[in-house]
Amino acid sequence: MTRRRVRNPRGPPCRRSVEGERKTGVTSQDVLHMRRAVALAALGQGGTSPNPVVGCVVVDASGEIAGEGFHAYAGGPHAEVVALREAGERASGGTAYVTLEPCDHTGRTGPCSRALLDAGVARVVIAVADPNPVAAGGAGTLRSHGVRVDTGVLTEEAERGNAAWLTFVRASRPYVTWKFAATVDGRSAAADGTSQWITSPEARADVHRLRAESDAILAGVGTVVADDPRLTARVPEPLRERPVLRVVADSSARTPATARVLDGEAPTLVAVADDAVLPPHLSGAVRLPRADGGIDLRALMAELRGRQVVSVLLEGGPTLAGSFLREGLVDRVVGYVAPALFGAGAAALGPAGVRTLAEAHRLEFEEVARIGPDLRVVLRPQPSKES
Amino acid sequence: MTRRRVRNPRGPPCRRSVEGERKTGVTSQDVLHMRRAVALAALGQGGTSPNPVVGCVVVDASGEIAGEGFHAYAGGPHAEVVALREAGERASGGTAYVTLEPCDHTGRTGPCSRALLDAGVARVVIAVADPNPVAAGGAGTLRSHGVRVDTGVLTEEAERGNAAWLTFVRASRPYVTWKFAATVDGRSAAADGTSQWITSPEARADVHRLRAESDAILAGVGTVVADDPRLTARVPEPLRERPVLRVVADSSARTPATARVLDGEAPTLVAVADDAVLPPHLSGAVRLPRADGGIDLRALMAELRGRQVVSVLLEGGPTLAGSFLREGLVDRVVGYVAPALFGAGAAALGPAGVRTLAEAHRLEFEEVARIGPDLRVVLRPQPSKES
Ligand SMILES: NC(=O)c1ccc[n+]([C@@H]2O[C@H](COP(=O)([O-])OP(=O)(O)OC[C@H]3O[C@@H](n4cnc5c(N)ncnc54)[C@H](OP(=O)(O)O)[C@@H]3O)[C@@H](O)[C@H]2O)c1
Ligand SMILES: NC(=O)c1ccc[n+]([C@@H]2O[C@H](COP(=O)([O-])OP(=O)(O)OC[C@H]3O[C@@H](n4cnc5c(N)ncnc54)[C@H](OP(=O)(O)O)[C@@H]3O)[C@@H](O)[C@H]2O)c1
Repeated sequence: MTRRRVRNPRGPPCRRSVEGERKTGVTSQDVLHMRRAVALAALGQGGTSPNPVVGCVVVDASGEIAGEGFHAYAGGPHAEVVALREAGERASGGTAYVTLEPCDHTGRTGPCSRALLDAGVARVVIAVADPNPVAAGGAGTLRSHGVRVDTGVLTEEAERGNAAWLTFVRASRPYVTWKFAATVDGRSAAADGTSQWITSPEARADVHRLRAESDAILAGVGTVVADDPRLTARVPEPLRERPVLRVVADSSARTPATARVLDGEAPTLVAVADDAVLPPHLSGAVRLPRADGGIDLRALMAELRGRQVVSVLLEGGPTLAGSFLREGLVDRVVGYVAPALFGAGAAALGPAGVRTLAEAHRLEFEEVARIGPDLRVVLRPQPSKES
Repeated sequence: MTRRRVRNPRGPPCRRSVEGERKTGVTSQDVLHMRRAVALAALGQGGTSPNPVVGCVVVDASGEIAGEGFHAYAGGPHAEVVALREAGERASGGTAYVTLEPCDHTGRTGPCSRALLDAGVARVVIAVADPNPVAAGGAGTLRSHGVRVDTGVLTEEAERGNAAWLTFVRASRPYVTWKFAATVDGRSAAADGTSQWITSPEARADVHRLRAESDAILAGVGTVVADDPRLTARVPEPLRERPVLRVVADSSARTPATARVLDGEAPTLVAVADDAVLPPHLSGAVRLPRADGGIDLRALMAELRGRQVVSVLLEGGPTLAGSFLREGLVDRVVGYVAPALFGAGAAALGPAGVRTLAEAHRLEFEEVARIGPDLRVVLRPQPSKES
């Protein structure tokens, strides 16, 4: 199984590092402000790629909230800058709570460490250290200018909110969410193949939200041939720089010329094996090595990483999902479970390399929610199975 | 599908009948007391068979709670009697809240209508009318003696708590709960057949609680041959009159002489087809007509009804569960879902008469709970599919 959450490479997680650094320096008030910053960060979800989501709360010297901000879209102002702007003079002598270590480099915007120093902030509280070697160092710069810096506050929650970006940076590949829809008995189609619709309109709307939050939507050619899906998000996409990329894993270049994924409504990448004979309508396909079951999925991940794809929504089908699990390339599972029983029909998941119980892919329920009449379950691989 | 909840045969449900009878007579205080009575009733769950569960709260003339009671075991005192005993003098001029219409006949205990009259209760509030023709009539008797009677308060909740007994009385057959354990992708065994254990010790302990609350535990001979289960509840059983009956559906009398279900630890009923050739160790088997897939399940239900089996826990396997669903004989589904993925192996549910999506067994999630690392989902057939 792939890693669940890559630990902060700078040191031990949350509580330990807080205690280690400043035993009594972090208050429950700090945790509350950081929780708010994490919530603010989440507002940028889906819009910031290839950047992380970041939230910031600035409180004045008396402890009153003076400014709030989040990073909304790549190229837009950073969370710290937004919050400092709102705080104005009141930032001076105050504290800034940031979910991710302030950047220390000049990209499309100036370094946030500089902005915090200019604003006269006395203290900066950080949830997650920046693992990005280009941007990191903000905490050091701040400290060297006499700013008190506390780290490791709400690290776990903030990491969860940034899971996609952190995987992208630390593991050098996109973060993969496998989505499936099935009955309680694990069927994704009835015996005669009918499958529209197993889940409710509410669940399907939620899938569109998931799609809109992803940089790429991936399906196997089996699904493209069987269902001819559009693989687009039919909800307004967040303020993203690029439209969602549609990707088809199609080693033998079987995607039909009439397939909806080729309709030009959004960019599409068809990934074929390097020995595939390409029909004219697939002349733009990318060639990748062959592997068990189709194209080499790690090569596909590298290809997508090169295109700055931070998050992939794997929409199946069961065969491709099985290969991803077998390769340890699934970071999150989102299942929509309908309160129905079929007793026959296609299974939601195909062969995934499990022959015996001990080899099972063990996960954890991270979230269980009702969604209309259905259930949405979110699972993550168990930490013990980290690779 | 079988009926979800048989409606009160005396009249329309809850709100309507309250409004119809006494528009302003039922207060939010009444609802609170009845909710408490429903909670008290639940304490008898599993012990009262073949009687219903009943809870009672007695408040004095000033509205203070004076006594509480529930029916704990068949042959034991009724809820009203327990509550009245605790209330003593204070019951006089007060109100009794009862989850089920007080009985009007003299069984092993005297009629509760009499006890309420003797105690001088001025008002009786009832959740569910007694559908049992032998015991019913309590409300009428009370009214004819000048007691104010309000019915239909929290009917739905009280009916849910008494679902097994109400099905037994109204549909003349045991209430059937199908229990299964599976992975998120609906597998109940890995490809090599290993299945112990898919779910956690917490989930398995919960199954023993389910078993202890049932009058009978039923398995197909396939499960008996494959797993050799004991089918006993390894938790203290409630104060039940009879031990839980073990039942095996075994049309061809294949249950081996060495099977644990024949160990004498609890009574066992092996149901065979009427043409089966019985080996000596199955000479006590009951013969039933043959039907599609094995023995006639409606005949089996009638047999169990005759033995005063109010509730059956159907423990599988997938083949027998499929037959029960096909026959519309499943009243409740309890699934233990482990956060694991197999991608292969035996399915939790076998053929259940569904060829196409429109024929799906549609249910409703009634309850979803974490149980250790697993999920417990409780489903009931959708009311629209009532037969
Ligand atoms: N319930 C749901 O959530 C859901 C979601 C999607 C689809 N579905 C259903 O799934 C069915 C299609 O399933 P499917 O399993 O046939 O199709 P699939 O998983 O979409 O596609 C499988 C195909 O992808 C290609 N592929 C390329 N690289 C691969 C690799 N590394 N591993 C595995 N496959 C690779 C292979 O074809 P080549 O060898 O030709 O490359 C393979 O046959 C449809 O009926 C659809 O309705 C259900
Ligand atoms: N995960 C779980 O919750 C769970 C629970 C129980 C079992 N299991 C697994 O299920 C497997 C056994 O499954 P199974 O499907 O072979 O066995 P099963 O459902 O326990 O038994 C099926 C057999 O019951 C007999 N039967 C009698 N009347 C029937 C009727 N009306 N309809 C259907 N069957 C009737 C039939 O045999 P005759 O024709 O000989 O009568 C039939 O082959 C085992 O591996 C066990 O581990 C899993």
